[in-house]
Amino acid sequence: MTAAAYTGSRTFKIQEPDAGPPPPGQVQIAVAYTGLCGTDLHIFHGDMDARVTMPAVIGHEMSGVVEAVGDGVTEFAPGQPVTVMPTISCGDCPACRRGNSHICHHLNFVGIDSEGSMQSRWNVPADIVIPLPDGLALDEAALIEPTAVAVHDVRRARVAAGDFVVVIGGGPVGQLIACVAQQQGARVVLAELDAGRRETAAGFGLHAIDPTELNLLEYVQQETDGAGADVAFEVSGAAAGLTSAVGVLTTRGRLVMVAIHPKPKEIDLHRFFWRELEMFGARLYQRTDFDEAVRLVAAGAIPARGMISRVVPLDEVEQGFLALESGGVMKVLINCSEAGR
Amino acid sequence: MTAAAYTGSRTFKIQEPDAGPPPPGQVQIAVAYTGLCGTDLHIFHGDMDARVTMPAVIGHEMSGVVEAVGDGVTEFAPGQPVTVMPTISCGDCPACRRGNSHICHHLNFVGIDSEGSMQSRWNVPADIVIPLPDGLALDEAALIEPTAVAVHDVRRARVAAGDFVVVIGGGPVGQLIACVAQQQGARVVLAELDAGRRETAAGFGLHAIDPTELNLLEYVQQETDGAGADVAFEVSGAAAGLTSAVGVLTTRGRLVMVAIHPKPKEIDLHRFFWRELEMFGARLYQRTDFDEAVRLVAAGAIPARGMISRVVPLDEVEQGFLALESGGVMKVLINCSEAGR
Ligand SMILES: [Zn+2]
Ligand SMILES: [Zn+2]
Ligand SMILES: [Zn+2]
Ligand SMILES: [Zn+2]
Repeated sequence: MTAAAYTGSRTFKIQEPDAGPPPPGQVQIAVAYTGLCGTDLHIFHGDMDARVTMPAVIGHEMSGVVEAVGDGVTEFAPGQPVTVMPTISCGDCPACRRGNSHICHHLNFVGIDSEGSMQSRWNVPADIVIPLPDGLALDEAALIEPTAVAVHDVRRARVAAGDFVVVIGGGPVGQLIACVAQQQGARVVLAELDAGRRETAAGFGLHAIDPTELNLLEYVQQETDGAGADVAFEVSGAAAGLTSAVGVLTTRGRLVMVAIHPKPKEIDLHRFFWRELEMFGARLYQRTDFDEAVRLVAAGAIPARGMISRVVPLDEVEQGFLALESGGVMKVLINCSEAGR
Repeated sequence: MTAAAYTGSRTFKIQEPDAGPPPPGQVQIAVAYTGLCGTDLHIFHGDMDARVTMPAVIGHEMSGVVEAVGDGVTEFAPGQPVTVMPTISCGDCPACRRGNSHICHHLNFVGIDSEGSMQSRWNVPADIVIPLPDGLALDEAALIEPTAVAVHDVRRARVAAGDFVVVIGGGPVGQLIACVAQQQGARVVLAELDAGRRETAAGFGLHAIDPTELNLLEYVQQETDGAGADVAFEVSGAAAGLTSAVGVLTTRGRLVMVAIHPKPKEIDLHRFFWRELEMFGARLYQRTDFDEAVRLVAAGAIPARGMISRVVPLDEVEQGFLALESGGVMKVLINCSEAGR
């Protein structure tokens, strides 16, 4: 088997360990694809060296096929297509005790805090393995994890049919949020500075605007008879994006904080008071979101294939990261199968 | 009849107009008491001269007795004790069209945007007059309006029995919020810098702490087995209060923005993301909140009498404002009855 392990300073080492049999309670997956996301890029950049244990086999957006099952595993059998919901919670912290185990205070995020999917054979606890329907292409299935993020974000916002929704930021998560919201019958506008991303979004049937060309607030006012947007998703991480997101909302409009703002940012709290606005933090997903993401990708309701800009073989994983940091791509997948080399 | 009219520059002029009969659809109230609040103080300070029409008879926290009714008014009769819910909405703006008429975009806030209750006879549209139960003392009834604010704030937070609630800021609204939340079975801690206010709160059976003496976050962690607070009310308007309010919350904890923060303030959005926190703006009240406030004050569940620091006759209204701005008082009432002069 082959594994790509991050060893620090923008470097991955290709290893050829022996694939042992899956331990009891675990499933061995022949990994097909692993998607790269912003967190993986942070790791590549060395920003998370204090958190990962090097050499680190990372990767958490994946698809594959069951290769073998360990003792006691009865729900899976070889040949079954699967993905993994890459979170293991402690069961005993304040978050877990309140039914919010997805944001467990001691979360083991698989692929960061423990071994991930950038390897051709991967042993995973059976209870985080998710069966996939037959016939779902495995490259598309690698988009299920980020789709689950989008489903969770949309659910946090209680988006309903007919809602007017503004998505600020058109990277992969922003576009997936826009797609999921539109699927639910919302009217969606996506604000994105990059022309290439706007073009991609247009190809997905999304209405993408350039907020430097078109005044977003005026546009939303016009489209909503002066009411404003029901929901805004802040996915840009930028101060200007945050200001826009607060500004476009209608009375009791809901703002979902998806982007990571590492430092405190100024926010118009008077407008929160005056219009009784609401803000919801949203992080990761719960099992129901993951199941819905499987359903949406399998149904072709999400343009998963269209999101894939490039597929790179496992032993060229660094090329994938270089493509990602150069911009101009949506999703980069790593082909982790032995056959893909 | 007697009326006190704000004429600019910290000055009220006492007028003795003729009390005409109530117009059709209106109720003439013999006003008993009018409470002063922070907004009234802003008017006294001249901060709202652009909004009020001088000479301005202000006042919106009141109680009284029906003196006469205009044509077509059948729900009220002379002698009936009443208060007024001082908001008139347009019925046609985006807020009104969505069932949020209490924060109507063209709200007529009675006592600011139109004539208020600092007069011994007051004609008011019948549909904003609220009947009071017999036996409720009229000085206590003047506390119903600020209690309705507190009821609304607590409802916005979905406070449930057993919740741990932190109230930041122990002025009248903060203390009323703490009382209402405690009434609903919550465990409440009130953080207030002023020793006199903490003493008042203790007299109401509230647990008030000095956040400069006791580390609020550590205290909340200790009282909640490390979980944090379910709900925080930001009633201080201070940057430090805001930071504390965000910091004490548990996973998916709810922050209610009650205070007015005129300028944008920095807020820890990463914590909103990480712990999936929620923030709700809360302004004024809806009819259901007002009805609940009547019930609470009438039942003695709110220490209305204890909140009254001072009662000043109508023709000495300026003395009331001076007491309010000097601090060290909770509620100042103006005795508006002819007998009170
Ligand atoms: Zn990811
Ligand atoms: Zn946990
Ligand atoms: Zn008031
Ligand atoms: Zn209106």
